[in-house]
Amino acid sequence: MGPLATLDFMHKVLAATPARRDQDHLPLLVSSIPQIPDRTAAFLGEGESPLPALVASGRRLADAGARLLVMPCNTAHLWFEPLRAAVGLPMLHLVDAALDEARRLTPPDAPIGLLATRATLESGLYVARAGTGVRWELPDAHALAAWVMPGIQAVKAGELDRGRQLLGRAAHALAQRGARTLVLGCTEIPLVLDAGTAGLPVIDATAALARATVAWALAQRRLAA
Amino acid sequence: MGPLATLDFMHKVLAATPARRDQDHLPLLVSSIPQIPDRTAAFLGEGESPLPALVASGRRLADAGARLLVMPCNTAHLWFEPLRAAVGLPMLHLVDAALDEARRLTPPDAPIGLLATRATLESGLYVARAGTGVRWELPDAHALAAWVMPGIQAVKAGELDRGRQLLGRAAHALAQRGARTLVLGCTEIPLVLDAGTAGLPVIDATAALARATVAWALAQRRLAA
Repeated sequence: MGPLATLDFMHKVLAATPARRDQDHLPLLVSSIPQIPDRTAAFLGEGESPLPALVASGRRLADAGARLLVMPCNTAHLWFEPLRAAVGLPMLHLVDAALDEARRLTPPDAPIGLLATRATLESGLYVARAGTGVRWELPDAHALAAWVMPGIQAVKAGELDRGRQLLGRAAHALAQRGARTLVLGCTEIPLVLDAGTAGLPVIDATAALARATVAWALAQRRLAA
Repeated sequence: MGPLATLDFMHKVLAATPARRDQDHLPLLVSSIPQIPDRTAAFLGEGESPLPALVASGRRLADAGARLLVMPCNTAHLWFEPLRAAVGLPMLHLVDAALDEARRLTPPDAPIGLLATRATLESGLYVARAGTGVRWELPDAHALAAWVMPGIQAVKAGELDRGRQLLGRAAHALAQRGARTLVLGCTEIPLVLDAGTAGLPVIDATAALARATVAWALAQRRLAA
């Protein structure tokens, strides 16, 4: 989706792979199509569905020989089930990977903050998937409109300093309300925020998906060996 | 080929694209297969040819809808013509893109330095393609064995500081022998060297190919509009 987020995911796959030479790294087939319709606009009924374009990309990768399909875009996971059904490849769910790391990093019963797009937040993509065992702190309407969405748009436009400033404000607001850790639940956000700039421990959903992807591939190698 | 070099190329395509939002960026299909046989070893007769794997990757991308094929690996261009013939897509030649920039940046008759793999240097990939109008300064046998090849291997192994130190020594040696500009003719080299660390103006072959790729795509858009 966002081309910088795709690169960030690829970097994190490289970083998570135990390798001493080129040949140790994972073979990747990447379909980076920034023209896929905007996921938040589609969820809000203000734009066309991204599903046909997602299915076309997924089938292209399957036809080219991919054995696993992953999608470094949180909001696109609103279409995860119909995409998986249409493409027929195994898929790893980005939100599951992030929730696994969030549970490990957060003290029991402590609130977890979540920064994400309006569509990810309003759809309950994280909250519903996590179930009842997790306490959340979510941005309020003002934080979402004034800081989170403009911050994500700034990153997409290449204005990284402005994006960092806006998203940092939203992170601090969640920390003040009691969040003990913070899920970066949109792949543009870890491009500018980390634990240092956010002011609390972060769970980078992109990195979590990258680690899960490498683990899957290494398990396949062990099975094949 | 080298997965970090592939990412570096994708970053340089993004940086060369005039864009204000995701949708302005170019759609990219990327086949990053670090298992493609080593190009230098194949040229030296010490390993299998990379051509079948290159053709398989190229056909995969053509089948998936690619309209242009580019290859961010200098040494792999030793197999450029048979690859183009087998895949049948238009291709841009990385060495031509780098030579265009080298000619613009170098005073007339001044020597151009070249850092590249043993296979790129010994095959005359740059020297033969440039023809008689260019004066070159190439690493001598000691510099190649002691600094250039170990520097490239260090970058591939993720030891960026060591790679920078070794390749920087090779760059300084060429500058001392009179090179006025320096072509970084292996995609691992610009990951660690720039004009500051090399000590003279550099031509980044990866960035030159990225700029040529973006120019090709923008020309196609204008034709389609």
